[in-house]
Amino acid sequence: MLRIITQWVEAQAELRRICDRTHDELVVHKEATVREVLQAVKRKGDKAVLHYTAEFDRMTLNAEELRVSGAELDAAYQQVSKELLNAIRTACKQVEAFHRQRVPKSWVQFGDDEVVLGKRYTAVDRAGIYIPGGQASYPSSVIMNAVPAKVAKVPRLVMCTPPGQEKKMNPAVLVAAQEAGVDEIYRVGGAQAIAALAYGTETIPKVDLITGPGNIYVTLAKKLVYGTVGIDSLAGPSEVLIIADGKANPVHVAADMLAQAEHDSMASAILLTADSVLARKVVAEVERQLANHPRRTLTEKAIVNYGLVVVVDSLKTAAELSNEFAPEHLELQVADPWALLPQIRHAGAIFLGYSTPEAVGDYLAGPNHTLPTSGAPRYASPLCVETFMKHSSLIEYSPTALKKVAKAINVLAEAEGLPSHADSVRLRTENQGDAEF
Amino acid sequence: MLRIITQWVEAQAELRRICDRTHDELVVHKEATVREVLQAVKRKGDKAVLHYTAEFDRMTLNAEELRVSGAELDAAYQQVSKELLNAIRTACKQVEAFHRQRVPKSWVQFGDDEVVLGKRYTAVDRAGIYIPGGQASYPSSVIMNAVPAKVAKVPRLVMCTPPGQEKKMNPAVLVAAQEAGVDEIYRVGGAQAIAALAYGTETIPKVDLITGPGNIYVTLAKKLVYGTVGIDSLAGPSEVLIIADGKANPVHVAADMLAQAEHDSMASAILLTADSVLARKVVAEVERQLANHPRRTLTEKAIVNYGLVVVVDSLKTAAELSNEFAPEHLELQVADPWALLPQIRHAGAIFLGYSTPEAVGDYLAGPNHTLPTSGAPRYASPLCVETFMKHSSLIEYSPTALKKVAKAINVLAEAEGLPSHADSVRLRTENQGDAEF
Repeated sequence: MLRIITQWVEAQAELRRICDRTHDELVVHKEATVREVLQAVKRKGDKAVLHYTAEFDRMTLNAEELRVSGAELDAAYQQVSKELLNAIRTACKQVEAFHRQRVPKSWVQFGDDEVVLGKRYTAVDRAGIYIPGGQASYPSSVIMNAVPAKVAKVPRLVMCTPPGQEKKMNPAVLVAAQEAGVDEIYRVGGAQAIAALAYGTETIPKVDLITGPGNIYVTLAKKLVYGTVGIDSLAGPSEVLIIADGKANPVHVAADMLAQAEHDSMASAILLTADSVLARKVVAEVERQLANHPRRTLTEKAIVNYGLVVVVDSLKTAAELSNEFAPEHLELQVADPWALLPQIRHAGAIFLGYSTPEAVGDYLAGPNHTLPTSGAPRYASPLCVETFMKHSSLIEYSPTALKKVAKAINVLAEAEGLPSHADSVRLRTENQGDAEF
Repeated sequence: MLRIITQWVEAQAELRRICDRTHDELVVHKEATVREVLQAVKRKGDKAVLHYTAEFDRMTLNAEELRVSGAELDAAYQQVSKELLNAIRTACKQVEAFHRQRVPKSWVQFGDDEVVLGKRYTAVDRAGIYIPGGQASYPSSVIMNAVPAKVAKVPRLVMCTPPGQEKKMNPAVLVAAQEAGVDEIYRVGGAQAIAALAYGTETIPKVDLITGPGNIYVTLAKKLVYGTVGIDSLAGPSEVLIIADGKANPVHVAADMLAQAEHDSMASAILLTADSVLARKVVAEVERQLANHPRRTLTEKAIVNYGLVVVVDSLKTAAELSNEFAPEHLELQVADPWALLPQIRHAGAIFLGYSTPEAVGDYLAGPNHTLPTSGAPRYASPLCVETFMKHSSLIEYSPTALKKVAKAINVLAEAEGLPSHADSVRLRTENQGDAEF
């Protein structure tokens, strides 16, 4: 069921098809519904949020029930195992340690004539993180979105996630949120959650920035509210591309491919190898591991539609194909991954060597698992502390410094036909003797 | 014509009205036209670009004429004055010097058990900058967009700008582009330029990232292609907010307000001061300076509709109002601007003191003049070198390190219902003795 391709041109075409797999759906469909939800929530606040929660999530709530209560938050700790709590704490600690590295700091520099230039970094006032519910619940996504916000010192961190069955939220998600520092949690999902965070309602605060993954409705809503608020990215389905040499273990490669495919029937898993024996072994091993897979239907659908093995002539060729695809996750299961690294130009996260499965990064190595997808690593980065910060330029000129640049500014302002630009400098400098240039 | 407000509630409402002045226009109108242009260029390439250039710019070109020729680029140097060339070079030099500060560098850190984590920064392969034509030509915008791209080491830097009258481009723009390091220039404007850069045509290369300001069609097009390519931001009309104390010179404050208003009839200029005498003097001075202004009609329209003076009770109140507005440009014309700075949370660029008019930053102080507008400084930053770069996370685990986290990953994968995630670690570690936790 997992196809092997050996022709470069066919491989390129297939990789392009996979990369674009959500494109038309994103642009064309479902936008009318999302626009309606956004407008309704903007105008009617909680009332619209509750209406769409009843319609889309089949959950009747009143406004007081939107916010997850303190009692429910406390109770969640009783409902997770000691082991799970420890694992959540380990993940929080390691993710925080990584994200504390190289956090941007404000700086100024002092030039001639008392000129001061600099950058001042500040956190956003309020951030909202969206955590999908649905098929599975993802405490790891809570950690990966909330921890960088707290490292950035965001004063108010709000989370929205769809209501569970019978109004009961997943306790692991609630515990992860508390351990990671989320300040308040609302049981609302889909486009109505994004609308509430972007515009604010009586109950849910308007935020400045929305991050986190979601389905097509969430992604469309994020694209439409971008400009009213900031967003992290437009997340598509997940993907892994593995470059493996003949020493790679086909059992491990197959498990890594299935670990991607089991997320979603739209997920993609790609192997590039110069070893045709490995290629065949991986195909057989994928079938074997799928046979008793608890999520077999969905996983198999992903493998059939968006799984691919390409036999290439060299690691160099593999790197070139990988750069064209620009994968979210890239595994370099080769003998010397650091030697191959300089040939890689675009990838969200890069896993080096035979003993670094993507799962280690998904959960607790430290780097973020919220990564650009669908070719976006060509221009975008993993979610990071900087996502929750912004900077202001700082400029201070002295009268002497201003006089020295007055002529150049005058010439440029004249060339651009903007007389008051010139005036604003001339009026400050003309009584101070001749301008130098 | 410039109104003075003294009531807090009225001031808040007016500032909100000004901040939202383009909002409805952005969301509702003109989108059908832009979608049509995008689809046509995506499908028909150059043919559609030439069609819309004829329709919107009233310029009939053939495909060979789209790219500005080497002869035209050479000739531009003969058409600018020595003074202007020098001013362009001064601006390039100072903008480059500022942008070279604190450019992000790749790093790795070595942990226990041979764990290696890090971030690898790389430039985008191709960037496209859009430079508006229309009412004025802006060599300074060319410099502010191109120089950070070159500092980021973008290998291929493409520029689009609307065709001039009689196919003649503004020579100052062409000289600035060459001095700043643009690799190729195309005479195409509007949504068709954004479409060409996003999808590529026979003549114009597809890029990974589009930056630069533009009118409402350009901004809508950028929003729609976001996700296919990266974009810097959604630029709205320009704005300045000035906080001034009683020692500020009303002649200078008025010139600074007009320097903003003269850009565009949608531009905004706001003064917050606790000194009602200064407030009245500025209002009178604005009228006086407007009387003989070469761009009087447009500038007056901006001042009447989006100009405002608010008399506040203290600098603290002024800072609070400014934070609510989150201005693109903020001038602190006060005796001790550095003491006021900690109260400022959101602004694109901050100009400190009486002798730092915005124009010094617009042209050549060094920091970028491409700034977030319309409240976006709450979450967004000036254009910078990082805009043209992205990073990949790096993760390498050893067998020993993987074994130590195997249990925690297994617990988390189970909680999330993702068995192959657990398998990918278990299969690598189970033959190596018991996992620790």
